[in-house]
Amino acid sequence: MLIIENPDKETYNSLLARPTQDFSELYPKVKNILDSVKLNGDAALRQYALDFDNVLLDTFEVDFNEWQAEAENIPNELKNAIDQAYENIKTFHSAQFKPQEDIIETMPGVKCWRKSVAIDKVGFYIPGGTAPLFSTVLMLGVPAQIVNCPERILCSPSSHPAIYYAAKKVGINRIFKIGGAQAIAAMAYGTEQVPQVYKIFGPGNQFVTLAKQLVSAEGVAIDMPAGPSEVAIFADETSIPAFVASDLLSQAEHGVDSQVLLVSTSIETVTLVKEALENQLNLLPRKNLAEKALENSKAILVANKETAIEILNSYAAEHLILATENYTEILNKITNAGSIFLGNYTPESCGDYASGTNHTLPTNGFARAYSGVSVDSFIKKITVQEINKEGLLNLGSTVEIMSEAEGLNAHKNAVTLRLNSLK
Amino acid sequence: MLIIENPDKETYNSLLARPTQDFSELYPKVKNILDSVKLNGDAALRQYALDFDNVLLDTFEVDFNEWQAEAENIPNELKNAIDQAYENIKTFHSAQFKPQEDIIETMPGVKCWRKSVAIDKVGFYIPGGTAPLFSTVLMLGVPAQIVNCPERILCSPSSHPAIYYAAKKVGINRIFKIGGAQAIAAMAYGTEQVPQVYKIFGPGNQFVTLAKQLVSAEGVAIDMPAGPSEVAIFADETSIPAFVASDLLSQAEHGVDSQVLLVSTSIETVTLVKEALENQLNLLPRKNLAEKALENSKAILVANKETAIEILNSYAAEHLILATENYTEILNKITNAGSIFLGNYTPESCGDYASGTNHTLPTNGFARAYSGVSVDSFIKKITVQEINKEGLLNLGSTVEIMSEAEGLNAHKNAVTLRLNSLK
Repeated sequence: MLIIENPDKETYNSLLARPTQDFSELYPKVKNILDSVKLNGDAALRQYALDFDNVLLDTFEVDFNEWQAEAENIPNELKNAIDQAYENIKTFHSAQFKPQEDIIETMPGVKCWRKSVAIDKVGFYIPGGTAPLFSTVLMLGVPAQIVNCPERILCSPSSHPAIYYAAKKVGINRIFKIGGAQAIAAMAYGTEQVPQVYKIFGPGNQFVTLAKQLVSAEGVAIDMPAGPSEVAIFADETSIPAFVASDLLSQAEHGVDSQVLLVSTSIETVTLVKEALENQLNLLPRKNLAEKALENSKAILVANKETAIEILNSYAAEHLILATENYTEILNKITNAGSIFLGNYTPESCGDYASGTNHTLPTNGFARAYSGVSVDSFIKKITVQEINKEGLLNLGSTVEIMSEAEGLNAHKNAVTLRLNSLK
Repeated sequence: MLIIENPDKETYNSLLARPTQDFSELYPKVKNILDSVKLNGDAALRQYALDFDNVLLDTFEVDFNEWQAEAENIPNELKNAIDQAYENIKTFHSAQFKPQEDIIETMPGVKCWRKSVAIDKVGFYIPGGTAPLFSTVLMLGVPAQIVNCPERILCSPSSHPAIYYAAKKVGINRIFKIGGAQAIAAMAYGTEQVPQVYKIFGPGNQFVTLAKQLVSAEGVAIDMPAGPSEVAIFADETSIPAFVASDLLSQAEHGVDSQVLLVSTSIETVTLVKEALENQLNLLPRKNLAEKALENSKAILVANKETAIEILNSYAAEHLILATENYTEILNKITNAGSIFLGNYTPESCGDYASGTNHTLPTNGFARAYSGVSVDSFIKKITVQEINKEGLLNLGSTVEIMSEAEGLNAHKNAVTLRLNSLK
C-alpha cells in the first residue's frame, strides 16, 4: 500500500483515477456472440455451451421442480442466514415502494400524478466462478418481488443449491443454465427457449459487462454500467486499525483489479493499519488476489477532515466507510458515494449481505450521477394527467401562446379546437 | 393513414414496429467529433463552428449579464405564459422530492436509510432549428432547480430570447453557444471553456442522439435513450373525432419520422377522424411535415377494449391519449406508456407545455423499462447504514455464514474481528 502525504489539489485527478477499462480487444468477440444469438437463437447458445463449457445442452431451462427441490439441499445454518438477510433486505426495500403518489392539482381542473408500474419482464445474470453469488440473487430478487414484476428469470452457469434457495425465496419464475455474454444476448433478444426481457440486472466478467453495455445501446435497459468493485475508508485517531485493515482486505479479496483507498488524518492510524494488513493477509485463503489488489492501493494522508471530504467526494467510491466515532459531520458533507458505512462497527460486509441495503452499487465514479439498485430500478413511473373543461379553460391560453411561440401550430390547434367547443 | 381491421395477434410485433434507426453511417462522423473535442478542446469546437455554422467564435459562453438582459426581450404575453407553465411544472415536480426518507431499523441496532443528494454538475442541450424549445428548458431546468444541482449549464446554438427567459427562470448558471454532437462532447469531457458535467439531458437530431449514446457508454450519465416522438390514441364512440385528429396532427407536425397510432373500437369514429384529419391538415403551416408523418401512421380497428389495451401495452407509446369518456378501467390496465392523457379535454399539447408533467419521455418502446424525466433524474440516492455493537451482535453471524458460503473469508473476518472484540 502506497502512502501519499498531503498531495496537491492538482494531483487529485491522477491520484484517484481508476485504471481505464479497454474493451477494444473484447469488442469484436462480444459483438459476434450477440449477433450470433440474435440470428441463431438456441442453436448459437448450444454451440457456445459446447465451445466454452464443453457441455452439450438440449434444454437450457432448469426444470422448475428440480431446482425447487435442489434448493433445500443446503445446511440449515445457511438457510437461516439467508432467511434473515432476506427479511432485512425486504424490510428496507419495502419502505421505498409507494405504489400510489398524491394527485397534484396544479390549477383548478388540472390534475397530475404518477402511477408506478412494475417492469413486465426482468432478467438476472448470476455469474459462475469460484463464489456462488446467492447474495446477489437476494439483492436483485427482493425488490423485484416487492413490486411484483410479472416475469422474473435468472441465467447462471452455476447450479449451486444456495443460488436455487435464494431464487426460491424471491420467487424467480424460471432459471436457465446459460453463462457469459451469450446469456445477456439470450435475455436481450429472446431465443426459442429463453424469453426476451426489458431490463437486465447483475454482475459479471468483462464479457458480460460489455455485452450489457452493447445491448443497452440497442434499448434494453440495464441496472447500471459496471466496473471493478471498490472501497474508500476514512480513518482518524478514533478508528480501530485492525478493523480498518479487515475492511480493506474484504474489498481486496474480490480480485486483482479491486480498488482500495484509505484517506486519513492520522499518520499513526495509517501506520497501524499497514501493520495490521500484513498480519491479516497471511491468514486469508484468497491471499494472492488480495495481495495483488493491495499493490495498487493507496493511503492518502491529509491535514484535516475538510481535505478528506474533498478527496472522498472527488473519488465517488462505490463503498465508503467512515471508520471514525465522529461521522455525522462528514456524512452530511459527502455528496458522492454508492453506499456509506458509519462508525467502527459497520463493516462493508454487513451491507454486502444482510443489513438490508442493496449491494448492487455504482462503481468507477458512476456514483457522481447514478444510484444503486433499489425498488425504483424495477418500476416505471408513468405520469398521468386529467384535465376537465374548467381546467382547459384555465390552462388553454398558456399552451396556445407557448406552442405558437415554438412554431408548433398543430399543438396550438389541439387546444384551440377544444376551447372553441366550450364557448 | 392506413386502416387495419382486427389484426391477428401474431402480427402485432411487425404492425407496431418502429422504423429502426441505423446509426452505422453516422457512427464514424460522430465518433470523430467526440474524439476531436476530447483531444483538442476549444480548438475543435472553434473549427466545427466554422465548418458547420460558418461562424468564428473565440468565446463560447454567452455573457451572463447579456443573456439575462436579452431574456426580457419577449412579449409580456409569452412571459406570463412561461411563468404559468413554470409554476405548474414546479408544483407537480416539487411533490416528487423527499430529501429525507425514514430511517429503517431492520434489526435492533441496525439502521439503514437513503440520503438524496443532487447531482453536482448537469448539462442541458437545447437544439436550434426552426422551433426555439424554451419549453424543454423549463422541463429540465425546473426539477434541477428544485433539488438545487450546484452547477447547471446549457448548450444551444440558438440565442432566442425565450430560451434565455426560461433559463433565467430556472436558474441556469452558464450558457454556451455550441450545437450538435460537439456540444455533447464538450459537456462530457470538458474543454478549456466548457466545464465537464456528470449527466447530460436534452433532445437533438441523430448526431446529438448518437453522441449522447456514445458518451453514456463511457460513463457520463444521460437522461434516456431517444427516438422520434410518438403518440398513440385510444378512441371509441365517446371520442370527439375533430379533437382526436388535432392530437394526431400535433404529433405528426414534429417531423416526418414522427410515429402516430390510432387504436379504436369504433369504425365510425375512425372514419370521422380520417375526414377531420384531411380538413385540419390543410390549415397547418407545417402541413408538409405532418402529411409525410401521416403516411406512415396507422389506425387499428379492434373488436373490444381488451384487445386495444393489449395493443397499447405492446406498443408502449411515449404519449398515450385515452380519448374516451370511460378511461378509468383502461388506465388501470395500462402498464407501458411514458405519459397518459385522460379524456376528451386533455390534449397532449397541455403536457408538452404546461399542465405540470414532464415532456421528456421514453420513446421507441423504452417506456417498457424507463420512466420520463422527474426530480429523480437529478438526484442520487445514497444508502447509509449505521450499526452499533448491539446491531453487530444481532447481525454478525448471518454475515459470517453467508460470506463463508460464498468463499469470501476476508468478508467474514471483518465481522469476526469485531465480534471477538465484543466478547
